[in-house]
Amino acid sequence: MNALDSLIAQFAKLPGLGPRSARRVVLHLIRNREKLLDPLITTLTDTSATIRNCTACGNLDVCDPCSICADNRRDTSQLCVVEEISDLWAIERSRMFRGRFHVLGGALCALDGKGPDQLNIDSLVARAASPTVTEVILATNATVEGQTTAFYISDRLVNCNVHISRLAHGIPIGGELDFLDEGTLGAALKARLPVG
Amino acid sequence: MNALDSLIAQFAKLPGLGPRSARRVVLHLIRNREKLLDPLITTLTDTSATIRNCTACGNLDVCDPCSICADNRRDTSQLCVVEEISDLWAIERSRMFRGRFHVLGGALCALDGKGPDQLNIDSLVARAASPTVTEVILATNATVEGQTTAFYISDRLVNCNVHISRLAHGIPIGGELDFLDEGTLGAALKARLPVG
Repeated sequence: MNALDSLIAQFAKLPGLGPRSARRVVLHLIRNREKLLDPLITTLTDTSATIRNCTACGNLDVCDPCSICADNRRDTSQLCVVEEISDLWAIERSRMFRGRFHVLGGALCALDGKGPDQLNIDSLVARAASPTVTEVILATNATVEGQTTAFYISDRLVNCNVHISRLAHGIPIGGELDFLDEGTLGAALKARLPVG
Repeated sequence: MNALDSLIAQFAKLPGLGPRSARRVVLHLIRNREKLLDPLITTLTDTSATIRNCTACGNLDVCDPCSICADNRRDTSQLCVVEEISDLWAIERSRMFRGRFHVLGGALCALDGKGPDQLNIDSLVARAASPTVTEVILATNATVEGQTTAFYISDRLVNCNVHISRLAHGIPIGGELDFLDEGTLGAALKARLPVG
């Protein structure tokens, strides 16, 4: 297998890509060697050499503690618990949360053999026990696994002196009622708010 | 912009990927640093250093002439003309052609300012003039641009002593009549073959 076939095979293994799109990407990269391929090699090498997990929250960054944990302007009293780093990034994009994060590394799932020991729950309990932390926001996914994990964590935090909250359920902004599932509509109705 | 953001931005520019899928790919790569990220860097570096265009046919390979042009077992009398390297790869995957290729590097397109000088047509005429070549197969796309290009090339080859052919039009294998356009159905009817 030459470099080209091996490169296509490696791209085809990435999430969301298959053999066909991998061939397209590789051809595109080779056609733009100076503008795309060589800069990509440099950035990948940089990333592999510098990116590490934050020992405090589990985020990925070039420094440890990560730039969020190291930022003194952020609120140290709020801890937002997420399943994955991609969830942390999503909340950061909303620009609505100025506290710190804790990445669990997944959710409890008996089928996949994911128990509490496979998740960063002990370190979360230790952080929540710190007197500076007053609120833990459980921002796990609204799936069975995510909600089970949130329930388990709220149980584990019962002896920490913290307020525990979860994300609101309801209609997504821009969502059309006709396309929403009954679970979401029901939750939105139940959590209805007074107008005016 | 740190290495991570820059890497996501570079992946997001690749064909078929956007910001969302780029984030997924980058997280996946970093999570599997030893198994995916580092091998990918090695292969990309290898590719950038070794892959070149074949001066004879325009294919991409680690050697020049490419492995197809250098293969003595392949038929030197047949020349298959394609628009892009991806078309060459597609025909190779069919395993039905044992001759050599000629990559034009696109098709004639007045709107994009692609004239005959921007395509590898002169070198094709030179190759077709060789006494070893007896047949030129025009395997350009079945689009207006591809067919215009094929027509132009057949005109340019009129003084070469070669048989000029094109790919058959018809119903794709596995295709359902109901989903085919009328152009394809009409072509398939016109080119119908006796049964038994």
